[in-house]
Amino acid sequence: MSKSKQSLTVIPLGGLGEFGMNMMAFRFGDDILVVDAGMMFPESELLGVDLVIPDITYLKQNRQHVRAIVLTHGHEDHIGALPYILRDLNVPIYGTRFTLALVKKRLAEAGLLDSAKLFEAVPGRLVEIGPFEVEFIPVTHSTIDCVALAIRTPVGVVIHSGDFKIDQTPVDHYQFDLHAFARYGNEGVLALFSDSTNVERPGFTPSERVVAPRIEELTRSAPKRVVLTCFASSVHRIQQVIDIADRVGRKVAFVGRSMVDNVEIAHDLGYLRIPDGMVVRPQDIRGFEPRKLIIIASGSQAEPMSSMSRIAVDNHRFVTIDENDTVILSARIIPGNEKAIFRMLDHMFRRRALVYYDNSSGPIHVSGHASQEEQKLLLQLVKPKYFIPVHGEYRHLFRHAALAHQLGVVSGEIMLLEDGKCVEFTEDGAFRRDPVTAGRVLVDSGSLEEIEEVVVRDRKHLSEEGVVIPIIAIDKHTGRVESAPEIVTRGLMSENGNEMLAGARECVARTVEMSNLEERADWSVIKEKIRVDLKRYINKQTSKRPLILPVILEV
Amino acid sequence: MSKSKQSLTVIPLGGLGEFGMNMMAFRFGDDILVVDAGMMFPESELLGVDLVIPDITYLKQNRQHVRAIVLTHGHEDHIGALPYILRDLNVPIYGTRFTLALVKKRLAEAGLLDSAKLFEAVPGRLVEIGPFEVEFIPVTHSTIDCVALAIRTPVGVVIHSGDFKIDQTPVDHYQFDLHAFARYGNEGVLALFSDSTNVERPGFTPSERVVAPRIEELTRSAPKRVVLTCFASSVHRIQQVIDIADRVGRKVAFVGRSMVDNVEIAHDLGYLRIPDGMVVRPQDIRGFEPRKLIIIASGSQAEPMSSMSRIAVDNHRFVTIDENDTVILSARIIPGNEKAIFRMLDHMFRRRALVYYDNSSGPIHVSGHASQEEQKLLLQLVKPKYFIPVHGEYRHLFRHAALAHQLGVVSGEIMLLEDGKCVEFTEDGAFRRDPVTAGRVLVDSGSLEEIEEVVVRDRKHLSEEGVVIPIIAIDKHTGRVESAPEIVTRGLMSENGNEMLAGARECVARTVEMSNLEERADWSVIKEKIRVDLKRYINKQTSKRPLILPVILEV
Repeated sequence: MSKSKQSLTVIPLGGLGEFGMNMMAFRFGDDILVVDAGMMFPESELLGVDLVIPDITYLKQNRQHVRAIVLTHGHEDHIGALPYILRDLNVPIYGTRFTLALVKKRLAEAGLLDSAKLFEAVPGRLVEIGPFEVEFIPVTHSTIDCVALAIRTPVGVVIHSGDFKIDQTPVDHYQFDLHAFARYGNEGVLALFSDSTNVERPGFTPSERVVAPRIEELTRSAPKRVVLTCFASSVHRIQQVIDIADRVGRKVAFVGRSMVDNVEIAHDLGYLRIPDGMVVRPQDIRGFEPRKLIIIASGSQAEPMSSMSRIAVDNHRFVTIDENDTVILSARIIPGNEKAIFRMLDHMFRRRALVYYDNSSGPIHVSGHASQEEQKLLLQLVKPKYFIPVHGEYRHLFRHAALAHQLGVVSGEIMLLEDGKCVEFTEDGAFRRDPVTAGRVLVDSGSLEEIEEVVVRDRKHLSEEGVVIPIIAIDKHTGRVESAPEIVTRGLMSENGNEMLAGARECVARTVEMSNLEERADWSVIKEKIRVDLKRYINKQTSKRPLILPVILEV
Repeated sequence: MSKSKQSLTVIPLGGLGEFGMNMMAFRFGDDILVVDAGMMFPESELLGVDLVIPDITYLKQNRQHVRAIVLTHGHEDHIGALPYILRDLNVPIYGTRFTLALVKKRLAEAGLLDSAKLFEAVPGRLVEIGPFEVEFIPVTHSTIDCVALAIRTPVGVVIHSGDFKIDQTPVDHYQFDLHAFARYGNEGVLALFSDSTNVERPGFTPSERVVAPRIEELTRSAPKRVVLTCFASSVHRIQQVIDIADRVGRKVAFVGRSMVDNVEIAHDLGYLRIPDGMVVRPQDIRGFEPRKLIIIASGSQAEPMSSMSRIAVDNHRFVTIDENDTVILSARIIPGNEKAIFRMLDHMFRRRALVYYDNSSGPIHVSGHASQEEQKLLLQLVKPKYFIPVHGEYRHLFRHAALAHQLGVVSGEIMLLEDGKCVEFTEDGAFRRDPVTAGRVLVDSGSLEEIEEVVVRDRKHLSEEGVVIPIIAIDKHTGRVESAPEIVTRGLMSENGNEMLAGARECVARTVEMSNLEERADWSVIKEKIRVDLKRYINKQTSKRPLILPVILEV
């Protein structure tokens, strides 16, 4: 094989070995096309870190060659890294209308919108980007306007599934384009990259529509208010709840910043049909007849500062949970979030709410990812020469590879890659190449509430910014703070250190005082509050943004 | 109602509002009987804490009245607090033979065995303890020699289910004693306290026996070694694996301290039948024909220092995982442990092992707790006047109460209690009384490996013992430690502070150096290693046992 031959190199930068931070680069000669730029939420071991994005050292080293980032859909694990990456690498971005609308919002918050180069892609149409010809193929998923990508290069066509399920009765009637995949399959596909998320599930993922009957039944029989939480990007789900509200004669109120924003975007673009007079403003909820209202709130994962977390401990401005209110968790419980979510639901149970959180008596949530039969179907339609599972932890990629082996439609090789492990496709075959730098970059965004002040913090700079560890002892019976908070710092130089420390102690004590008993008992909530408040205080005093690691001792 | 009337007061001290640390006191006049004394594992937010036990302030305040602790079975969440509680309160302990054997081991490790007063209870026989007459009723569960308790008092009989399922074909042929419950039901039962763990599951929990066919099939078709992990207390499961090994012509090796200990205890007492010549010693595993061996290892929850965690990263003295070895996780994935367990399994997948971890192709694990139909059956048999759900988070207690409402066999009241909330039963009825002190006490045992040095650390003593926060930055590409570790301390006074700190830095650096790359990449493992080594070093230097909170920064 000679180096002068034409070749396509695939460089996975994220999402092969973990869920989240999806990103993959395709290089043909001196031209690089990037698919997706996602973030992920950190594991609990990563204290003080807000989010994690892919290491783009490889792209920065090749910045003059990067032609574009092409987006498959608008979920955070596919677009969330853009505000951080565009600072270093302001390349054109292609995405469908709704995807771009979400991107615009994030870039505006980061102050990057004016300089961004955004291009709307239309499903079914072709776009030329350097030597790549990209077709955006409509697929179904748990958000709207999702696409797979067919990327034509001089050495062959590669298909990237994005995230998908095969929903034959989508709520918005935009069908999964089986024919496009069949057409490419007939023509011959060099390589398929396909979503492994649900490879542990046999069968077919049910249509998004299956949740409507049970949610309608719960809503019809609800004696008082209904509070439903789902992901703010689940536009289909939100549409179905609005339709149900209309049928049962209730109004809807949207609560939570991300919910309100996404509903507004989807509505403005015509993706959400909301009958006139249907919406109750959050500030009008309190006086509104409970039997006539469905509240749709963000915070399904019990994120510490989210609406649902606040509502659960009676700390939300407009919403309370009272006896016989109905609470519906219409979302997946993401592994790692169980404890926080169930702690939140237990607060609702204590308030004697009617709480529904699983599918045991009828589906109130359904996955947006393909199960095994759908994964096989895509493989059958595309019948690629090479198959590379993407989007999953190692065992998901492994099992997806095993599924393809069993199926037997891959004519060449099934390849198990991980982030940074490259493959070069030439007319002679597929060859593993030296790995490139890849991995996780930890981002400390200050707080999810003030995303406009985000800074990417390279932890090598710890010595410049330092670390602050507030230690508070909370009496488990009274919820009172025992003695003054301790503050341990390292690497945080300051002219007036003692004064600053005294102020920091006060700041922490104040935060705890202003929290109610249930918040104090919920470590994740109180720690996040302390972190946000202390960060703001220290930044004001020192203009620094140290790592803040609250430690709670229960005495 | 007059105060002079006879009454029985129920004081829940643990397990009503959380899973684990089960403990409940029954007081008749001046006599107190305690049921169980369990521990639980801490949530990840509780840094540096090894385990959590119930607050026994109430019992200490009434120490002259506590007549005994009666144990239902030998699981840690029912006996694990004994080594800590007996230091304060050396009262008689009653339990069945296997339960007492496990208790003896723990007390011996804690140096408390000589002074302990242990009494063996025989299922089906009565024991008088002060004014209480206790019958130990055989029940089935995921370990052996388990009992429910019927406690006869002058105001009536109360029944405490312990943990149970209704296994009609138990591996050891010791049946769940339906007749005893029916007999008490006919006689009339004042109150039933029953296990809520699986109240979210409809139907009947299958028999322990259902796992044998699939495990046998996997073992017969295994091309090389089989490594199976389950809880060390799952004696039924271990027996079935031994029987399977015998049938398929393999030997067994037991690996991991708790597995080796429990097998020895169960075998000595005649609860485990092991054919002669069946056992291969751990040190002989390496040379043994892989096709002829099943390794049964502890560490199913990927505890940081456990055998399975070490095996997964190639850091076990005797066991490695190679291509085509079979790995079977024959245990529940306890919520909160998912990330650690799947990280462990992913290491096995990377070594090209055949990994089985769920029931999707046939059961390899089955629960030991009653599902809804069994919970209803117990309620039907006992038909108590009062019903109090125990063992669960709030929503489980709530749903168990709802199940009982739906069933309609409780003639008096269904009462939802939480830890510390008391109820007094008199001939006039049931009355809620002022709550007593109850809650969680955090225990720092040094490490699970050196439990003989355990100390109960009241966090109020933080100022005496101090806190040490080692901060290391690990390069995510090379796994190398970047620059010298930082050590932040507070409240740790020492004559020669600087010298000690320099030594501590060296200690941390050495720990990291001596760990392999996969261990360094697994934060939970590397943090636990740093904590254990540094604790030993600091204790040697200062005779103190500060709280140690390792922080890993990935750069």
